[in-house]
Parts: sequence; C-alpha cells; structure tokens
Amino acid sequence: MLHQASTTLMVSAPRQGLHDITDEVAVWVEEQGFESGLLTIFCRHTSASLLIQENAARAARHDLEAYFQRIAPEDPSLYTHNDEGPDDMPAHLRTALTQTQLSVPVENGRMALGTWQGIYLFEHRSEPSRRQIALHLIGE
Amino acid sequence: MLHQASTTLMVSAPRQGLHDITDEVAVWVEEQGFESGLLTIFCRHTSASLLIQENAARAARHDLEAYFQRIAPEDPSLYTHNDEGPDDMPAHLRTALTQTQLSVPVENGRMALGTWQGIYLFEHRSEPSRRQIALHLIGE
Amino acid sequence: MLHQASTTLMVSAPRQGLHDITDEVAVWVEEQGFESGLLTIFCRHTSASLLIQENAARAARHDLEAYFQRIAPEDPSLYTHNDEGPDDMPAHLRTALTQTQLSVPVENGRMALGTWQGIYLFEHRSEPSRRQIALHLIGE
Repeated sequence: MLHQASTTLMVSAPRQGLHDITDEVAVWVEEQGFESGLLTIFCRHTSASLLIQENAARAARHDLEAYFQRIAPEDPSLYTHNDEGPDDMPAHLRTALTQTQLSVPVENGRMALGTWQGIYLFEHRSEPSRRQIALHLIGE
Repeated sequence: MLHQASTTLMVSAPRQGLHDITDEVAVWVEEQGFESGLLTIFCRHTSASLLIQENAARAARHDLEAYFQRIAPEDPSLYTHNDEGPDDMPAHLRTALTQTQLSVPVENGRMALGTWQGIYLFEHRSEPSRRQIALHLIGE
Repeated sequence: MLHQASTTLMVSAPRQGLHDITDEVAVWVEEQGFESGLLTIFCRHTSASLLIQENAARAARHDLEAYFQRIAPEDPSLYTHNDEGPDDMPAHLRTALTQTQLSVPVENGRMALGTWQGIYLFEHRSEPSRRQIALHLIGE
C-alpha cells in the first residue's frame, strides 16, 4: 500500500562548491524500506542549490565550480544588491541556474541513479554553513 | 489515506520579470487540507518559467532580471528565429536556463519552503499576458 | 485507488542537440490508463539532459542549440578535465544548466503540457548514443 516518509537532512557545507550528499540521501531512502516510489530532494535556501553531476572525475567538479564563478562572477560592480557581501548576489544567480529541487524514481529499494550520477549540494556562499535539505518519499 | 488534488491557476503577468505567486499557491494548498504530501507546480508555457528566489530584497530580484537580460539578450542578430519578436527567442533561452516545474514537499499542512524562499513566475515576454500554472498535490 | 507504474525508455540520440521524446513518453503514459497523477521523467546521465521547449519552430531549436554551444563552448583551454574529449566537459555544464528531471501532472489520462510544449532529450555528446530515461507515474 502506498505511503509517505519525510525528513530534513542537515548538511555541512564547510566551503564554496560541490558537496556529495548521495550517500546520506541513499542511507535514508534505504532505511525507509520502500520497494518503489519517488524521492524528492528540496533545498530550503536561495544561496545553495542541488545538482546531479559526474561522480568520478574530481577535475570535472573543479571545472564546474570554475564555470559558475565565471558566468556569475563575484563582482559587486555588476549588481545593486551588495549589502550581504560580494558572494550573495552571485549565490542567488547560481541557484537560479541550477536546481532547488530534484526528484528521483526509486526502484528495487534504491534511487534509480545512473552509474556516473552523484547528488551534490552546491554551496554558493564563502562562509561555512549548514543547510537544510528536505526529503520526501512516496511509494510502497 | 493518500489522495490527490489538482487545479490550474491563471496568473497575470503584466510586465517582464519576476511575479511572486507564493501566496496564491499557498492558499490553494491550505484549502486542500493535506497534512503532508508533495506539491508540483508546472508552467504550461515556453516563454515564461518558474523560480524559487529570495523573497526579501527587492534589489536582488532586480539584479536577477538584469542578469538574464545580459546572458540571453534581446538582440536579433544573435538568433535566426525572430519572427515572433525580439523578446521571443531570449524568452525560450531564459526558460531553458530556469525551471518549467518545481515540486515542494508539504509538511504540517504547508509548503516546506525555507524562510527566505518565494515562488516566482518569471515572465519573459514584454506584452502583458496571463499564464496557466498547473498545480498537483498528492498526500494525505 | 492510487498506484504506481514505471519503466525505462531507451532513446536513440544519433547526434548532438534536441531530440523530441514527447510521443514516446505520451504513448507510455496513455498505456498505463491513469486518469490523473504525476509523471516524472529522469535522465540517467550527466552528459545529456531534459528540456521542455517550443515544439513548433525548428529555428527556435536551432538557436537554442547554438546558444548552449556559445555559453558552454567546446574549448579545451577553458577546462582541466579534457581526457574524455572536447565535448565532455561542456556536456556536464550544459546538463547542469538544464534539467536532469522533469515532473508533469497528468489530467484526463494525458500529460498536462501546454499547446506549444514538447519534451526533449538534449544530447550533449557528439558520438551517437542511446540514453536511459526512467519514467515513474503515480496516480489513479
């Protein structure tokens, strides 16, 4: 019979960039004991976001971080909203360009990720922070 | 017991840019009387999109609108598809870079948005328009 | 009574760019015989993505492809991760800028797409490939 489960993960983001949260999410999903369903991951912030990316090559993650620094630079001359620091407005832009929410089908008790897919929290602020990631699972 | 509800919001977009639809969506969700579940918001257009953004600083929304004008400019020399106006092709690009759909977990009868998160319709055309936003809620 | 269905579509992507998968997805949805629900489409790759875009003007799709070539160019001097070919790192960036997952409400037995909306697999690699698209449907 279909039912639901939900929780909030607290994720440490000690530095700007990509933080792999695949294992934390997978552990919670497996604990719920669903055979099949739909998992939704929701980031409760506007200066951090979610991304599914290559989980193998470290250089790929470095290039991805550098790319977002390039297309949404920390340059106060570009923005009017600078009173929360030079990394604040680019943080909102990088969030807009990536994802606040991801849903992943669950099959055979596990997320149906591809072999090379990892789930990342993309932290856009310089200061270390802790982020709230809401998880919702529906299925059976 | 799990069940569903759905509707279509008609949203007025009198000008290009971000239009806060958080309250309209929240009112509908609360009216459905679900304790927990998953809300999906779906924009039925290719020249308007959805975004979760900062709901406090007006300057942040201004900078975000200016940013998308910069990275997907209304410059017909850049595009071959110009017969629907100079704002049409950039509208499709800005839609591609943001979201057509957002899902938000519902907890304690309300969307589990973070404190600073608002839900916006991002209108990309210059002409005033009315947009169809499909809402789907599943839960109990 | 609410229930679920799921499958994996194998989609041929013989060239870089947008491939219309609306019909393949729609046929599967209609075969499941759900009156209402939520369809989730999930791309199991990090160098191909999903996009809802204009289904009428071919020139619009051409401009969209050209735009992503411009903002995430195949230029190895920009990246450190080049050992999988000049199209590999831009593929990850274009995936990050678009969608890995889309959810679409189902109403009256069909996806509630707008008139001009088509669902596309956005292939970012040059080599012909076959992509796995997981579909999950929940509803009644």
